[in-house]
Amino acid sequence: MSKRIAILGGGPSGLAVLRAFESARRKGAEIPEIVCYEKQSDCGGMWNYNWRTGLDEFGEPVHASMYRYLWSNGPKECLEFADYSFEEHFGRPIPSFPPRAVLHDYIKGRIEKSNVRGYIKLNHAVRHVTYDAGTEKFLVTVKDLKADVLETSAFDYVVCATGHFSTPNVPYFEGVEAFPGRVLHAHDFRSADEFAGKNVLLIGASYSSEDIGIQCMKYGAKSVTFSYRTKAMGFDWPEGFSEVPLLEKVVGKIAHFKDGTRKEVDAIVLCTGYLHHYPFLDDDLRLKSRNRLYPEGLYKGIFWVPNPRFMYVGAQDQFFTFNMFDAQAWYARDVVLGRIPLPDAAAMEADIKGWVAKEEALEDASQMIDFQTEYVRELILATDYPRLDVDEVARMFKEWEHHKVENILTYRDRSHRSTLTGTLAPKHHTPWMQALDDSLEAFLATMPSQAAE
Amino acid sequence: MSKRIAILGGGPSGLAVLRAFESARRKGAEIPEIVCYEKQSDCGGMWNYNWRTGLDEFGEPVHASMYRYLWSNGPKECLEFADYSFEEHFGRPIPSFPPRAVLHDYIKGRIEKSNVRGYIKLNHAVRHVTYDAGTEKFLVTVKDLKADVLETSAFDYVVCATGHFSTPNVPYFEGVEAFPGRVLHAHDFRSADEFAGKNVLLIGASYSSEDIGIQCMKYGAKSVTFSYRTKAMGFDWPEGFSEVPLLEKVVGKIAHFKDGTRKEVDAIVLCTGYLHHYPFLDDDLRLKSRNRLYPEGLYKGIFWVPNPRFMYVGAQDQFFTFNMFDAQAWYARDVVLGRIPLPDAAAMEADIKGWVAKEEALEDASQMIDFQTEYVRELILATDYPRLDVDEVARMFKEWEHHKVENILTYRDRSHRSTLTGTLAPKHHTPWMQALDDSLEAFLATMPSQAAE
Ligand SMILES: Cc1cc2nc3c(=O)[nH]c(=O)nc-3n(C[C@H](O)[C@H](O)[C@H](O)COP(=O)(O)OP(=O)(O)OC[C@H]3O[C@@H](n4cnc5c(N)ncnc54)[C@H](O)[C@@H]3O)c2cc1C
Ligand SMILES: Cc1cc2nc3c(=O)[nH]c(=O)nc-3n(C[C@H](O)[C@H](O)[C@H](O)COP(=O)(O)OP(=O)(O)OC[C@H]3O[C@@H](n4cnc5c(N)ncnc54)[C@H](O)[C@@H]3O)c2cc1C
Ligand SMILES: NC(=O)c1ccc[n+]([C@@H]2O[C@H](COP(=O)([O-])OP(=O)(O)OC[C@H]3O[C@@H](n4cnc5c(N)ncnc54)[C@H](OP(=O)(O)O)[C@@H]3O)[C@@H](O)[C@H]2O)c1
Ligand SMILES: NC(=O)c1ccc[n+]([C@@H]2O[C@H](COP(=O)([O-])OP(=O)(O)OC[C@H]3O[C@@H](n4cnc5c(N)ncnc54)[C@H](OP(=O)(O)O)[C@@H]3O)[C@@H](O)[C@H]2O)c1
Repeated sequence: MSKRIAILGGGPSGLAVLRAFESARRKGAEIPEIVCYEKQSDCGGMWNYNWRTGLDEFGEPVHASMYRYLWSNGPKECLEFADYSFEEHFGRPIPSFPPRAVLHDYIKGRIEKSNVRGYIKLNHAVRHVTYDAGTEKFLVTVKDLKADVLETSAFDYVVCATGHFSTPNVPYFEGVEAFPGRVLHAHDFRSADEFAGKNVLLIGASYSSEDIGIQCMKYGAKSVTFSYRTKAMGFDWPEGFSEVPLLEKVVGKIAHFKDGTRKEVDAIVLCTGYLHHYPFLDDDLRLKSRNRLYPEGLYKGIFWVPNPRFMYVGAQDQFFTFNMFDAQAWYARDVVLGRIPLPDAAAMEADIKGWVAKEEALEDASQMIDFQTEYVRELILATDYPRLDVDEVARMFKEWEHHKVENILTYRDRSHRSTLTGTLAPKHHTPWMQALDDSLEAFLATMPSQAAE
Repeated sequence: MSKRIAILGGGPSGLAVLRAFESARRKGAEIPEIVCYEKQSDCGGMWNYNWRTGLDEFGEPVHASMYRYLWSNGPKECLEFADYSFEEHFGRPIPSFPPRAVLHDYIKGRIEKSNVRGYIKLNHAVRHVTYDAGTEKFLVTVKDLKADVLETSAFDYVVCATGHFSTPNVPYFEGVEAFPGRVLHAHDFRSADEFAGKNVLLIGASYSSEDIGIQCMKYGAKSVTFSYRTKAMGFDWPEGFSEVPLLEKVVGKIAHFKDGTRKEVDAIVLCTGYLHHYPFLDDDLRLKSRNRLYPEGLYKGIFWVPNPRFMYVGAQDQFFTFNMFDAQAWYARDVVLGRIPLPDAAAMEADIKGWVAKEEALEDASQMIDFQTEYVRELILATDYPRLDVDEVARMFKEWEHHKVENILTYRDRSHRSTLTGTLAPKHHTPWMQALDDSLEAFLATMPSQAAE
């Protein structure tokens, strides 16, 4: 009987696994029977916008953390799939920093083209995964949300690709329970319009804080205050923005910070990151990790050492995204197909230890980029994934970091060059700070006027 | 070996079951070994306020649907435990409509007094319940949230008391995904202050809509518009409130209603009720029901007919609350203790059919109150639960309905008489519309001045 593999999640990572197997199948390989379970009504993961917050129409936690007016925060040239360029998808070059809908379209385009839709069961939420040592099978229980019934099936392999930027990490700050205004986590942030005219306080000093703060200002907030725990972002913030140490407590509308300063605020957005959360996994399969470049317990960042037929794709913190998921997917596929042998547990542990030690010695963003570049390079070299120029990607990431330091409000107006086609991206018709319409139509229009409804 | 019973949930319903068994134990009965799993860090269920929305610090869905400034919407004399009066708990008579914190204190007071705390495992979320026909046991898998591990135990009986006003029913309305303001469900409503100065639209025509609308006005909203699907609430609304037919779509900030009228609004609160949601139950144990007075499949509103050692407490829509949960708990207990025999499945089905037919013929609130009164009466008569004067409770419910029709802003200023002590509740020191401080201290103070901080 042919082997069976379950893919949990139909976001960029899960879809990469589908694509990897399909690519092998087209080249004549015999592949296992595949089922991909996706709880949302469409694939594309985080890139599938949802106006809902909290729980969805079926009572499931809403996966989406993306918001309206979200644009790629890295150059699209850094995430480009090595086997499917943006030019191929859109039929022409497009600017370097597309809004969410454009990237969603790109992700889905590759899927439509590779004809793997049939493997995906939409509206199926994974509820319980357990390993039966007797039969050596994984039992995967899913809820068919529309039919409102549970189903259990047995699999030889499981890939967990459910993402880890969806379950908010929500610390408590003294007084928030009595704050007379909205307190929310970035996960529930949807529309910057709501904060027009307001003094907004953001806790956290990473991507969500940076981007939500800028969005709020772009859409009319009165002031934006960033509060950091470890280290300020340190950009050369324009007027209206300020960075202060960590929030100590809030009394009425007054936020008190560790340095003794205070500020009256109307809303508090906790941009305090996310939890690795796999409520559907038995303890013996469950990764416990913080958001880091090399989670412990995963050989090659993929294989769950205690039971390597259980795999994770996309479980690490990410400079590289779509093409790193591809690199992992191709590698995982080749292990499943028996093309790459896995070493024994001790060797796997030793390999992980080496990477983790290197990770822990990293001192700045540039070193982190190099670290992840090495990781992706190693994966790609082991498979037939098209040769991606990872060094050029690393160079672009560093250039992008410089652009951000130069001007945090204009880095998205820059152009980068595709490592696949060699094309330098055209400039967008509108500077990002003036581009209020984030629709695919407005972005792909050649002039801003065409964007008007 | 002694029998084991699991109680899922430590809200008023789960606590009623604990209290019922404890009461039998004190009278000399041998009772099963009991474990009550409660996912929150305190018991009291819905009455345990949580400033969080969406997911909690462990990534679990936040149970709380209650908000700041929530006061009992029915007279406390209608829900009074027959074995523990408000006078006994507070040492003196208190007004008829207490705020949330006061009722939470009352619920917990009975628990402290009856010494059942030891049965309750706080911070334990039920993840998976399954019935093993071979061993005739229920396997209950829970997550110890603090230790971050799963545990599975076997039980002979399970009482599901996890509430059904926690998982929001969130319909879609055309245009909400582009509405430039906050869209939320009542479940996520916390602080009316956020809506001061705003034009608020509420969808739904039941308790949540009514109460959240009034709260918003009380705390400074500019206008409140209620939009109904089936029937307007029809109260004699003061200036600033209006009732309109169902929302058809929203275009920008303009809400369009079925009757062709429009209104510019700043926020939309979906007060569209809740789902019976038991994501942790296997299909063969899972009640599927809408919010109704007599859910199908439950004999005496409690016993799951296909497997009556699986029970539900508090699964019906509620005029009666705390004392009805008690009546159910005492009845369930007596079945478990073998004091009340259960008829065969056919007889149970026939009994349910009779109740459901009656329920479906009910025409107004007064008839609904009578229906639930009959139901509670029947349960109480079968056990040693103290004889509650259910007819007097029914009379009070109807009087309360009249008070609401007379003036929806002042019904909470009325006094009702305890059926246990005969005492007429004292008037509160401050009319409800002026009582902005909802703390226990402010409420129990004898003068408004004492309430000031
Ligand atoms: C606010 C935000 C902005 C971001 N912006 C960028 C950006 O600009 N550029 C960039 O490259 N990256 C960005 N990222 C990173 C982003 O997470 C990755 O680009 C990518 O989406 C990760 O893919 P994934 O498939 O691993 O996870 P996800 O995209 O999160 O997909 C996981 C999928 O699993 C499904 N799932 C989860 N649980 C279950 C279950 N129990 N049963 C069934 N299905 C389930 C989900 O519905 C989802 O479809 C951003 C992330 C966030 C949170
Ligand atoms: C907004 C609102 C206002 C209300 N106001 C009133 C009022 O004024 N007067 C009145 O009499 N009634 C009121 N009610 C009705 C209220 O639901 C009942 O009073 C009562 O709380 C129901 O008790 P319960 O124990 O059945 O459910 P709940 O109070 O909901 O308690 C269920 C418990 O189960 C726990 N739980 C859920 N899932 C799990 C899990 N997987 N694992 C472990 N534990 C779990 C929850 O954390 C919770 O503690 C109101 C309800 C709402 C939503
Ligand atoms: N396209 C876009 O524009 C965009 C926008 C948003 C997010 N994203 C993506 O989303 C992902 C997640 O980013 P993220 O910023 O949400 O998470 P993150 O990168 O993990 O950062 C978490 C932040 O929260 C802080 N934090 C955690 N706990 C805290 C506490 N108790 N008190 C104070 N601060 C605390 C951390 O501070 P310490 O440093 O002190 O630990 C850190 O600054 C990234 O992949 C990012 O690229 C992209
Ligand atoms: N203490 C308090 O003040 C207080 C406050 C709030 C709630 N509560 C309690 O909370 C519980 C729940 O009350 P609730 O009002 O949330 O729920 P509910 O009583 O079940 O009412 C749900 C409402 O939503 C409407 N609705 C459902 N789906 C809809 C749709 N698709 N479009 C439009 N309308 C829709 C229903 O209209 P139809 O009639 O058309 O079906 C109904 O009006 C009750 O026990 C109540 O006592 C108490």
